[in-house]
Amino acid sequence: MPSVSIERIERDITAISRFGFNEADGGVYRQGFSPEDMAVREWLRARFAELGMSHRMDGAGNVIGRFDPAGRGEDVPAVIIASHTDSVPASGMFDGVLGVVAGLEVVRTMKANGIEPLYPVEVIATAEEEGRFGGMLGAQAMTGHLTREWLDAAADERGVKLVDAMREAGLDPSRAMHAYRPPETIRAYLELHVEQGPVLDTEKTTIGIVEGISGVFKWMVRLIGKADHAGTAPMNMRADALMGMADFAHEIPRIIEEEGTGKSRITIGHVNCKPGFPHTVPGEVDFTIVGRDLDHDKMKALASACERVLAAIARRNKLHFEYEQMSWLAPAYCDTGLISLIEGKTKELGYSYKIMPSGAGHDVQFFCEHSRAGLFFVPSVKGVSHAPDEWTHWVDCERGTRLLYECVCELACNEGALEEAGQAERV
Amino acid sequence: MPSVSIERIERDITAISRFGFNEADGGVYRQGFSPEDMAVREWLRARFAELGMSHRMDGAGNVIGRFDPAGRGEDVPAVIIASHTDSVPASGMFDGVLGVVAGLEVVRTMKANGIEPLYPVEVIATAEEEGRFGGMLGAQAMTGHLTREWLDAAADERGVKLVDAMREAGLDPSRAMHAYRPPETIRAYLELHVEQGPVLDTEKTTIGIVEGISGVFKWMVRLIGKADHAGTAPMNMRADALMGMADFAHEIPRIIEEEGTGKSRITIGHVNCKPGFPHTVPGEVDFTIVGRDLDHDKMKALASACERVLAAIARRNKLHFEYEQMSWLAPAYCDTGLISLIEGKTKELGYSYKIMPSGAGHDVQFFCEHSRAGLFFVPSVKGVSHAPDEWTHWVDCERGTRLLYECVCELACNEGALEEAGQAERV
Repeated sequence: MPSVSIERIERDITAISRFGFNEADGGVYRQGFSPEDMAVREWLRARFAELGMSHRMDGAGNVIGRFDPAGRGEDVPAVIIASHTDSVPASGMFDGVLGVVAGLEVVRTMKANGIEPLYPVEVIATAEEEGRFGGMLGAQAMTGHLTREWLDAAADERGVKLVDAMREAGLDPSRAMHAYRPPETIRAYLELHVEQGPVLDTEKTTIGIVEGISGVFKWMVRLIGKADHAGTAPMNMRADALMGMADFAHEIPRIIEEEGTGKSRITIGHVNCKPGFPHTVPGEVDFTIVGRDLDHDKMKALASACERVLAAIARRNKLHFEYEQMSWLAPAYCDTGLISLIEGKTKELGYSYKIMPSGAGHDVQFFCEHSRAGLFFVPSVKGVSHAPDEWTHWVDCERGTRLLYECVCELACNEGALEEAGQAERV
Repeated sequence: MPSVSIERIERDITAISRFGFNEADGGVYRQGFSPEDMAVREWLRARFAELGMSHRMDGAGNVIGRFDPAGRGEDVPAVIIASHTDSVPASGMFDGVLGVVAGLEVVRTMKANGIEPLYPVEVIATAEEEGRFGGMLGAQAMTGHLTREWLDAAADERGVKLVDAMREAGLDPSRAMHAYRPPETIRAYLELHVEQGPVLDTEKTTIGIVEGISGVFKWMVRLIGKADHAGTAPMNMRADALMGMADFAHEIPRIIEEEGTGKSRITIGHVNCKPGFPHTVPGEVDFTIVGRDLDHDKMKALASACERVLAAIARRNKLHFEYEQMSWLAPAYCDTGLISLIEGKTKELGYSYKIMPSGAGHDVQFFCEHSRAGLFFVPSVKGVSHAPDEWTHWVDCERGTRLLYECVCELACNEGALEEAGQAERV
């Protein structure tokens, strides 16, 4: 039986990487609704056509190819394989693209094997996943997470409005609301993505089966003390805002040990120390806290501990303390039936694997509450992501695609696939 | 016997505060060699003339009034009372000015009391003390700490060259090197200044007798780790540069406890966290360390401990660590004879006092190695300095001036004043 082809996967990923490739830095520039992004979507429709798939672009810009050789019709729920082909600026060639190319290769292989699935298979390249306009437009639109207000207001960092970018790309923004997919049209949603983190590469593991997308909160914290002359103010008479921030940072490992899990993350990524002069005791420090966990109660416990620790440090250091919660996104869980199915197929293929959370956001998170949804990872070398030197070994691309093929065939051809996958609980 | 007058002191300080006063923020703008700065110097020469003092501006811009009613002549060493009348932008009205006005009032009172000193008394308003051009031009020039190279190269933050600013103010820069005062022309140098720190105000002490100017080192430190996605990088796989900086900051109190003294200061005043995105683990942090102590060996021990702690933290956090020493200024010690004299007069006047270091730089530091030099402080309310709301109570201005008067009379009229002050050692 023909299987997925490492050569074809490499050929397609390489072909897509040429759209928006920048010789100067070796990076890919294919931001949502840019000419390069739209050109890849046309390229993809040509591939769908070659495979005899029906294809269309929905109102949000999602490109959808449908494989239905048995002619089961539009009313039959589909097995969706999705990821994205847009990129951040100066990105690598695998992020998102692998999942779409794998979808093509799955259909190609099914066709080569003469498989006529009970449930049509759809390959979708979602629109604007990387958040040029602050969301994940395509996935939000399909799952009912889009509002007209947001659509009209969204703009990129340069101030370009989403609706203008869509019009420029030949789309009618008002049609975006028509991209909604009722749950009954989806049998299952599956996504293959590169990990974008170091875990699989470090642990020499082939497959990461994602149990869910970690919830995330973002705070903007302000510690206010008193700016003083760094020579004349004795250490014990200072109200040094930076020392307060440092004391908090120092407590992060303890906060996670006491309140969190091995899946917890707390990061201070942005710091603004004022007035910022070497000879002046910092009178104010603004910084961000981004916290994550896969368990919503643990997230709340982490946030509560951050607040208590900051309050205690502020008192101890004679500082005033305030924070604003910029966002709070609850965790999203993948379908336990799909997790069991993916795990079973991974074992059959003899691949090493681990069940893990996804700390990064993905299209799948919008499908988690909407339909059965699953995601799995292949390793990113050294965890590099969103950079020109992002890499995933071709053999891992092949293994991921092979696993995707097995899962999709099972879901598309076996009516009882999900029941048979057992009642495995979320780990 | 007439004594110093609180009314005259207030009148003169208030008069000077009008030069460069900004209604909008209530601050004084009288930077070195600005028209406002030069106007005050003219104002001061007029006051010297009223008191029958000879007066001149030397090549560096120092304005010097000489009180020699006994006609002892130019060859007799002078008791110098000095401070400065230039300001930082948006400064208050006491910094520097008090010391010059106090000098005027001392001469005025000596004259009122018919005192004809054995040693002439000079009142000097030094040029460019606040470092608009990166040094303390007037004091450096008088004590031989000025070079032609530095003079020609110095420029302010806007790129205005010192030599151009001097020419604009009507001075010939090449004459600055002529401002040198051989040590034998100086019997003693005395400076009264506001503390610019919170110690005297907090401890409700009237006089701070300065034992020396703390030495100071400034480092630019760079910690380099790895920028990672704050969601996908587990805590134990990160090389978070900011956490390294925070760990170091957290150790500062311990470093001072183990290696320093109650006079030690270590400050992180400037922090640049890169790339500075909330959702990205900081891959690099650049920050300054400014360390101070009055004891040169303790300074070295503090610097050595900073290096060891940074190296250990870098190893532990998988960071690369480098630093550049931007400057290293050794401590400067006031004359023990003058300290004893000031202390004795303070006791006679019944003022509370403490012996303390100066963490801020002052003109006196250049005179410490050059001649007998002494400095004492009066309280700054809440330690506020270099800001419009800088304040020193008038009664403290009066007490400081009274103490200065007693010290100057003793030094100028009593040949054995310094010997009589005893052999008190530096505390």
